[in-house]
Amino acid sequence: MLKFQTEKEHFTNPLYLESGRILEPYDIVYETYGELNEDKSNVVVICHALTGSHHAAGLYEGERKPGWWDGLIGSGKAVDTDRYFVICANVIGSCFGSTGPMSERPPYNEPYRFKFPVISVKDMVKAQRILFDRLGIHKVKAIIGGSMGGMQALHFAVQFPKFAENIIALATTYATQPWAIAFNKVAQEAILKDPVFNNGYYDPEIIKEEGLSGMAIGRMAGHISFLSHESMQQKFGREYKRDDGLFELFGKFQVESYLEYNGYNFTKWFDPLSYLYITKAINIYDLSRGYDSLDDALGKIESNLILVSFKSDMLFRDYEMQHISKRLKLLGKKHTYINVESNYGHDAFLVELDLFEDYIKEVLDGK
Amino acid sequence: MLKFQTEKEHFTNPLYLESGRILEPYDIVYETYGELNEDKSNVVVICHALTGSHHAAGLYEGERKPGWWDGLIGSGKAVDTDRYFVICANVIGSCFGSTGPMSERPPYNEPYRFKFPVISVKDMVKAQRILFDRLGIHKVKAIIGGSMGGMQALHFAVQFPKFAENIIALATTYATQPWAIAFNKVAQEAILKDPVFNNGYYDPEIIKEEGLSGMAIGRMAGHISFLSHESMQQKFGREYKRDDGLFELFGKFQVESYLEYNGYNFTKWFDPLSYLYITKAINIYDLSRGYDSLDDALGKIESNLILVSFKSDMLFRDYEMQHISKRLKLLGKKHTYINVESNYGHDAFLVELDLFEDYIKEVLDGK
Repeated sequence: MLKFQTEKEHFTNPLYLESGRILEPYDIVYETYGELNEDKSNVVVICHALTGSHHAAGLYEGERKPGWWDGLIGSGKAVDTDRYFVICANVIGSCFGSTGPMSERPPYNEPYRFKFPVISVKDMVKAQRILFDRLGIHKVKAIIGGSMGGMQALHFAVQFPKFAENIIALATTYATQPWAIAFNKVAQEAILKDPVFNNGYYDPEIIKEEGLSGMAIGRMAGHISFLSHESMQQKFGREYKRDDGLFELFGKFQVESYLEYNGYNFTKWFDPLSYLYITKAINIYDLSRGYDSLDDALGKIESNLILVSFKSDMLFRDYEMQHISKRLKLLGKKHTYINVESNYGHDAFLVELDLFEDYIKEVLDGK
Repeated sequence: MLKFQTEKEHFTNPLYLESGRILEPYDIVYETYGELNEDKSNVVVICHALTGSHHAAGLYEGERKPGWWDGLIGSGKAVDTDRYFVICANVIGSCFGSTGPMSERPPYNEPYRFKFPVISVKDMVKAQRILFDRLGIHKVKAIIGGSMGGMQALHFAVQFPKFAENIIALATTYATQPWAIAFNKVAQEAILKDPVFNNGYYDPEIIKEEGLSGMAIGRMAGHISFLSHESMQQKFGREYKRDDGLFELFGKFQVESYLEYNGYNFTKWFDPLSYLYITKAINIYDLSRGYDSLDDALGKIESNLILVSFKSDMLFRDYEMQHISKRLKLLGKKHTYINVESNYGHDAFLVELDLFEDYIKEVLDGK
């Protein structure tokens, strides 16, 4: 059984955000697996996606499902916890312990709600870098992340060129494109218009118990973007849950049940304000912001960079990663770009580990 | 200026639906362009899509936008109204004059609402065939339709093999796949959960004036499926409506404004119950239902069949049309399959007429 430690660090120095605003004080929750070696040269950082958390691997007591990348992280696995000290922090803005919109807003005895500042992926990365500094970690073996985790990995590469030996960014992009923003828009609008959301003044306990249909609807749209036409065909076909019900208005195709279950279940474990803030962070993600151009940003990279896209990814298309690779080539920057044959869609980075875990192992082994 | 006539026919005989239920009585509204020739040999039928109507071409007094296929239908256009008598009927279940869920339910003095029977694309086609019979039209030059209009065209081909000389089906499929059902699910759920929808007991006038956010949200999801990653990139890029607002939580990317405008505007002119019923008809569309197999159904076709798909169509993928073409080839059935080079997405059949209008002209000219 994989051993892990969950810790929380409290920071009283202000976090200067990209927006010009300040977050102060703030907490960061993180989880670690494996042992830090003496010269602290065996650190691997894992960055999570939109609704992920610091719980990347291992099984919490009483839970049935392990961490979201448990297949990748553990003893003898691609990210081998017998060799590496793996650390995954919950991003600021999220709802799993790091400071987010439902955290208490000092000096008031109530949550920030909409008083929480807009955060960016750059801010998430900055906060993690400050956490690592406090932990005495000033250089890491690798930073690995998919989707919004990949955005963080790329930001680490650009902003802190000497920090990571290797950067592995999966299923991500250089700047969020309108197709992805559009899916986020559906979710944001659905949350905002739900009367139970109550303009942000909802009761989290009521939502956990009774759900929040607006967020469920938004999440259903999200799930479409996470899969692909082909994977849905293979997963669900035109299977119908009730044979006799084809002509009932609210009969159910398998795909409808899937979306309904996952949509409504989601509202039991994720916070709607965090969903609004993190989708906003994804929308405004642009690796080139603050630099003269994307080339200027990419030109800063010194880490060994590995870009992994998935051919059927409908959210961040493979040609978005190819674009980064092309720019790097023109800049004369050595890197590796892998386009994984998969028809699963975006979620392949969470599900089809066997298609890319060997690459990760090779990078960590220095091959 | 294209002349057109809008007519309504009332039917008192029962319409026997695929579900086993009956619609009785019912109305069908239709529009015609051009003149019927003496031997009635110049009829071209146009079938509309989900939210289309019988108003396929021409300009209503006081309106700024002409019918939805005005670029294709008219004097000297691909469907030349100087030569052809063009007819387009509003499908049953819709909200533009043909009988639908908000029509009066006899003998009660109130709308059907959820008492309206589930209808299928097959039923829509059957009702149109009955209309044409009444008009004394027993054979037509061509039936043309895209998306759900293409489903109707294919159903005409299979069910009434001797009725149409040519069938032109664009941007459609042989059976709706889970990817498309999933988008419909988001819309249905968003409508159903909107308190203004009031479980079907809404006031249509209030919705027209104040909108229905649930349907707007559903329509936004729809608009994603109608476009493509590439066309959104070209149309909107990452343009921001307010330069200074990037870090405002509710700032707006162009794509967000587009979705918002089109989503909310939609609720002014479309009925939510019709949206539920017609998306249901699309979900259960399966050309093979009632036949031993798809091959069995396709084997009935005697019309000259032209299948047109669009390479970037994200809703009905080009390989769905290719599948029909492959089956027809194996059956030894002559037909034409064209995969149009376009990156616009599904809406190409409404927007990029120049990419396919020549094919339609050639078919009608008998070349």
